[in-house]
Amino acid sequence: MLVIKIGGGAAIGAGGYVNFAEDLATLDQPFVLVHGGNAEFSELSRALGMPPRMITSQSGRVSRYTDAPTMDAMLMAYCGKVNTRLVAALRARGVNAVGLSAIDGGIGVGRRKPTLRGTEDDKPKVLRDDHAGTLETVDPALIRLLLANGYQPVVTPPALGEEGIPINVDGDKLALELATVLGADGLLFFSDTPGLLADRHDEASLIREIDASDPEAALAAAAGRMVVKVEAAVGAISRGVKQVIFSDGRADNPVTRALAGEGTVIRAR
Amino acid sequence: MLVIKIGGGAAIGAGGYVNFAEDLATLDQPFVLVHGGNAEFSELSRALGMPPRMITSQSGRVSRYTDAPTMDAMLMAYCGKVNTRLVAALRARGVNAVGLSAIDGGIGVGRRKPTLRGTEDDKPKVLRDDHAGTLETVDPALIRLLLANGYQPVVTPPALGEEGIPINVDGDKLALELATVLGADGLLFFSDTPGLLADRHDEASLIREIDASDPEAALAAAAGRMVVKVEAAVGAISRGVKQVIFSDGRADNPVTRALAGEGTVIRAR
Repeated sequence: MLVIKIGGGAAIGAGGYVNFAEDLATLDQPFVLVHGGNAEFSELSRALGMPPRMITSQSGRVSRYTDAPTMDAMLMAYCGKVNTRLVAALRARGVNAVGLSAIDGGIGVGRRKPTLRGTEDDKPKVLRDDHAGTLETVDPALIRLLLANGYQPVVTPPALGEEGIPINVDGDKLALELATVLGADGLLFFSDTPGLLADRHDEASLIREIDASDPEAALAAAAGRMVVKVEAAVGAISRGVKQVIFSDGRADNPVTRALAGEGTVIRAR
Repeated sequence: MLVIKIGGGAAIGAGGYVNFAEDLATLDQPFVLVHGGNAEFSELSRALGMPPRMITSQSGRVSRYTDAPTMDAMLMAYCGKVNTRLVAALRARGVNAVGLSAIDGGIGVGRRKPTLRGTEDDKPKVLRDDHAGTLETVDPALIRLLLANGYQPVVTPPALGEEGIPINVDGDKLALELATVLGADGLLFFSDTPGLLADRHDEASLIREIDASDPEAALAAAAGRMVVKVEAAVGAISRGVKQVIFSDGRADNPVTRALAGEGTVIRAR
């Protein structure tokens, strides 16, 4: 069983749904698809007069401020447009897909952090009523039930906050936690790059393989934002996921290519 | 088991989600919730510069023209905002809700009618690339699986067209077909009126009871748009649904009140 995360970048747009669906229809094993929707979310927010507000924390982490109307836009983009279009594209090709948000059936529950502190355009800001949070628990019961009955779940953020309202959680973390708790044979991440790059401005600097059994060497090979991804992948492998692959979501047959080793393959040698 | 349809009118807005969720949390039997989203859909379309275009057919039926961008707005409003907000409100009150569109798991498949003919503002029009259609088959397997495992499904249009694209189908018909195929003990319709009215301008003209065992008398009691509703209700009862109730979605405890007989109750005496 595979967990497959499709990033929500601009390169994986309308054509991307069909591209992934055609490839996934040829897959000979069950899968759980997790997806983002950031490009659609930003486009919709802008069209509704709510351009993204990015806040940089003291530690340098950049977060999008999500007040209640922005959360509605997130629900509309992620759960409404991207999830349903993906499910329709999959079903049209014979995949028995079921679309879910992590709210459904209690898949993902998290802790809301209503106050967002940091800088916006280099000015200090404290923003209240943020609807973002951290994923705390993942319950795979609903996903297991669907897989056992021949359905392929397609899952998207948000999760449910402890107070019962939707919260914006990281889609990569959702995929990681699901892969771990489900004991996935593989966890595949697709985005707008060929994989993990030693130099993020140079697609030719692709790192082809990372040995998860030597975490220190693995982390030494990683730079910048890559460190978090490598750390998370190594952690998932130490918890039983067989391999983690970062690969190009813009390619034809992206899943087939990734399983053939195109991209960055992280496993324990 | 009940099938409960909540109309998408303006009166059942943000407060409505919580109002229904609080009442449904007290219900002592399984249910399938079907909902509309028309007011949210129209508001979003207008905000995105696509105001609703209404076409009147030769027979007097009014349809909303749904091109591809308008279908995206429908997905965002129905599947994104209304469905997810309802599920979150239910889960926050302890109901084990799972949100679905009728596309998921093949619940609803229909026939698309890509050409829409009629008049728009009294001018004859032929509009191509309409994404509306008629529900043809309902497959309750996924809903049965969820109910049997303690989940309460929350289902919304659209359905999947035979060519594999989402189509706008009637939510009332979806609820009727689901109630019939599931053998529901009751089918409850909630909208912005107290029930079926003999005079649609006068809420005091509520019809309290209709005897489904005498269809001619039942239809004689109906007027205008009500005829279609009474016909559909009588049909559902003849196919095994125990009772159909039309009731007020704006009231407190709307489901409890409807089950206590507030509204129009249609059953075979």
